[in-house]
Amino acid sequence: MPYKPGQKIGYLGGGQLARFLSQSAQRMGLEAHVFSSNVDDPAAQVVRHWQQGEISDTKKLSDFLNQTSVTTFESEFIDIDLLKKGMNKKNNVYPRPDIMGLLQDRKLQKNLLDENSIATSDWRDVPDQNSLSEYVKEFSYPFVLKKRFMGYDGYGTFIIKNKTELDQFLKQNWKNDLYIVEQFVPFKKECAVIVARSSNGTLTHLPFVESHQKDARCDWVKGPISLKKEKKIIKQFFKLLEKLDYVGVMGIEFFLFQKELIVNEIAPRVHNTAHYSIDTEGLSQFDLHNMALLGLDLPPPQKMKQAFAMVNLIGTGQELMLSNQTGLHWYGKKENKKGRKMGHLTVTASTPEQALKKALKIRGEMGL
Amino acid sequence: MPYKPGQKIGYLGGGQLARFLSQSAQRMGLEAHVFSSNVDDPAAQVVRHWQQGEISDTKKLSDFLNQTSVTTFESEFIDIDLLKKGMNKKNNVYPRPDIMGLLQDRKLQKNLLDENSIATSDWRDVPDQNSLSEYVKEFSYPFVLKKRFMGYDGYGTFIIKNKTELDQFLKQNWKNDLYIVEQFVPFKKECAVIVARSSNGTLTHLPFVESHQKDARCDWVKGPISLKKEKKIIKQFFKLLEKLDYVGVMGIEFFLFQKELIVNEIAPRVHNTAHYSIDTEGLSQFDLHNMALLGLDLPPPQKMKQAFAMVNLIGTGQELMLSNQTGLHWYGKKENKKGRKMGHLTVTASTPEQALKKALKIRGEMGL
Repeated sequence: MPYKPGQKIGYLGGGQLARFLSQSAQRMGLEAHVFSSNVDDPAAQVVRHWQQGEISDTKKLSDFLNQTSVTTFESEFIDIDLLKKGMNKKNNVYPRPDIMGLLQDRKLQKNLLDENSIATSDWRDVPDQNSLSEYVKEFSYPFVLKKRFMGYDGYGTFIIKNKTELDQFLKQNWKNDLYIVEQFVPFKKECAVIVARSSNGTLTHLPFVESHQKDARCDWVKGPISLKKEKKIIKQFFKLLEKLDYVGVMGIEFFLFQKELIVNEIAPRVHNTAHYSIDTEGLSQFDLHNMALLGLDLPPPQKMKQAFAMVNLIGTGQELMLSNQTGLHWYGKKENKKGRKMGHLTVTASTPEQALKKALKIRGEMGL
Repeated sequence: MPYKPGQKIGYLGGGQLARFLSQSAQRMGLEAHVFSSNVDDPAAQVVRHWQQGEISDTKKLSDFLNQTSVTTFESEFIDIDLLKKGMNKKNNVYPRPDIMGLLQDRKLQKNLLDENSIATSDWRDVPDQNSLSEYVKEFSYPFVLKKRFMGYDGYGTFIIKNKTELDQFLKQNWKNDLYIVEQFVPFKKECAVIVARSSNGTLTHLPFVESHQKDARCDWVKGPISLKKEKKIIKQFFKLLEKLDYVGVMGIEFFLFQKELIVNEIAPRVHNTAHYSIDTEGLSQFDLHNMALLGLDLPPPQKMKQAFAMVNLIGTGQELMLSNQTGLHWYGKKENKKGRKMGHLTVTASTPEQALKKALKIRGEMGL
């Protein structure tokens, strides 16, 4: 499906996701515009059209939205009321702010999954301490208290193992309407997948991958993997995307428990678990997202020719190494600090296991 | 071999070559700085650190060189005297300006090849009409008159088929000291290769490719190809690079004539015939050039897993198409005019022929 080069796409946010989106847009012949707070931001460094600003600055935001054909964001935690304040009827922001609103509140996200019969861990709304007490009576420890808003990379997630921990939590952290409670899933593995829908209605997805967390952050990903229930899940999510009239890429994380795929989280954006796609797929998750925004036909899912692994490079390693076997991507963050995602690398091999072994070895040689 | 991210690399020139070099640098975690004349230049669009300027503006050039660790250029036609005026002893510019000087004058380039016993078409210096007359007496038509300076993409190259054409040329174009004369090589095919040398002395090369010209411009490239004499040629060029203490990538174009590889032209820079390497090699020609500038170990030549073809997208097509099979790169030039290189695409397949067929088909679908 043909498109015209030169169209202007806006990205709200200046991190590595906006950086990769910008670079994808540039390769496609589109003009990437970035709106972020700091000139040193990873995405600010790779575009000519950078606008310093905060979402709260309605005038600046409005000017930015007016100068692009379509705008997207790299974080689902944008304040929707502020975003809407800067928008007028002509502005195209995808995924639509209302959908972001549904997904950025874990309570509404859980409701959405339940309503669409998509398997997720059992949960309850716990607006006050009474409702939490009710839950504790009915279910057993351990369970998980999750902040409804702004939780990511394990921030805002609390595993409660016993009454002592609960009492401590209630004393130190509790606020009404701030949490939901989830059953703890003693999962064996975590998996992830990217689904995508274009504004012209075409749908696609990337392969399933196994993902591994360390210190509550994505540490590595390997794939492709085959799962018994994957077709069913994809079908459910395609249906959901259609129902929501969703536009863009969506990242989905699962627990794998007793051969069931249980949705852990949904993010209405490109996702760390699919960074491998830059080096292994003809069209990366970033390309797919941009194509979706422009209303282009998304390609049908591809059979991967090779297995792959992606490992995150988390601060504070200072020495990088290049080789023909390594797809190294450094994000150009000014401050290299412990726990910060500074870059990633992707390698391919005959099997996911071999790829992961190779990737971890290379990372080790960088002292990370 | 490890390196520190954050080093600043400068690029003189704002075209697609500087754009790809900048993007390679950014991926590697380096800070790309571009010095070019126009804010709309392809490279100016993909960097935060852009300096408007001309080489003739000594103050601006000097400031630019002082703010980077190392600087390189995308065109071999920079005025060396002006460049040197802006340089001080601390500035690292690679390949060194004196080497650029040797290569930008076809007469000196031919001398260099002869001195190093590298096969090239027979030639003569023709400083005046007398010396040209001498040549005509000794050799037969057709022959080629080439401008000593600033010839590229067929500009400055004149094939003279008979006395009438010669007389016309003498009347219309002739100036003393402006040309050399070369024997016309009735070549069957043209080939090209990239050799590279790091400032730490390591050497490498990319595979040989067949290249095809149309309207005196690179139209397509396919590869890898195997040539009887390739080992000998690579050895000769490695020796030359060492002798020159050359730093960076060098593009070499050959005529293939009676199974001999006859050097047509050398360019002290990244080259259109190796753009395929972005999509097919772990490290592209742009990565290799940046690594060479930083003094990193260059990887040994790789055996290609797949065959490939690259076709140029030459103006004035307006409609692009993306697919998982196509590595599409659009350069973001503001003005799309006839004969202008606007982008390229790379595809892979089992054989170079299949890849080329596929690539031409896709280009055709874009109406180019």
